[in-house]
Amino acid sequence: MPRPARERRGPRISVLRLGHRPGRDPRLTTHVALVARAWGADRLYLEPPDDALAARLAAVNARWGGAFEIVGAPAWKPIVRAFDGAVVHLTMYGEPLDRVVPRLRRRARLLVVVGGAKVPADLYRLATVNVAVGPQPHSEVAALAVLLDRLRGSPSPRQRPAGQLAITPSARGKRVRVRGRTRP
Amino acid sequence: MPRPARERRGPRISVLRLGHRPGRDPRLTTHVALVARAWGADRLYLEPPDDALAARLAAVNARWGGAFEIVGAPAWKPIVRAFDGAVVHLTMYGEPLDRVVPRLRRRARLLVVVGGAKVPADLYRLATVNVAVGPQPHSEVAALAVLLDRLRGSPSPRQRPAGQLAITPSARGKRVRVRGRTRP
Repeated sequence: MPRPARERRGPRISVLRLGHRPGRDPRLTTHVALVARAWGADRLYLEPPDDALAARLAAVNARWGGAFEIVGAPAWKPIVRAFDGAVVHLTMYGEPLDRVVPRLRRRARLLVVVGGAKVPADLYRLATVNVAVGPQPHSEVAALAVLLDRLRGSPSPRQRPAGQLAITPSARGKRVRVRGRTRP
Repeated sequence: MPRPARERRGPRISVLRLGHRPGRDPRLTTHVALVARAWGADRLYLEPPDDALAARLAAVNARWGGAFEIVGAPAWKPIVRAFDGAVVHLTMYGEPLDRVVPRLRRRARLLVVVGGAKVPADLYRLATVNVAVGPQPHSEVAALAVLLDRLRGSPSPRQRPAGQLAITPSARGKRVRVRGRTRP
């Protein structure tokens, strides 16, 4: 369902990822960042900061377009306390997604918080709402993707300024446009 | 939206994860497995096999219920060729999810295939359908979760037999039932 570039669906979204471990395998946090970017979030606050990961996402923007940013956060509480909107903590212990999504869609701005293995107990209290995508162990990558999908629908190619590359959907194989050209 | 345990929503689902790398950080494949289990897939075929990961998921079943299984697959092609249903390859190059989901909902059985960094070119041809959750780089964990969410909706606690533990959804903090009791 293509829409004009400037028509927004649902609230403006920032994501906060807690408990990242720079130096360990960065793939999970990279996936969190790619999901935030692909579903149209404006930025990812990353606690603690990781310059290498920020550089990788800047390279993704250069190739695939958009202005998604990684903002390093030495501490998470100031981000949560200063946020001018609803703070949505994704946790398997929270309220059911089906019940919460209609309320969230009406908000202008959301800060979606995803933790790692251990989440500080304070977060449950400081969040505007604690939301469970499901009551079984799953994945912060999955929880973020499903919430954003429910709020904004499928990522549209028209949601962001063009990069060097863009995909043309295809039943078989890969079709990638390079600055206006199509290559197989 | 709780439903009776035996009422199925949508097709029966198996997942095939290609290009797992045992010995490297297993968290991404663990997340793929947890997502498959949480959204009600019956099994994950894992290529190549990884006994340690299978044991971890068996422990999750013991605590949280259900009969989700990990099936080690030395090669992926026999699984795809022998599958008695539609083979759905998740790739950012495929057809848009919005277009494909109504067709998929009518199928009795689906094999959802997620790759790693490199996907064999044959797979695009052998799949019944190549589906893109979005045309931007994202995550196999996210793609699987969003597809299953579109096909089956939120995981329901009633979809699986009880384990030792079950979560009671809560606005604040954690409520976990232990074999019939509730503890804070």
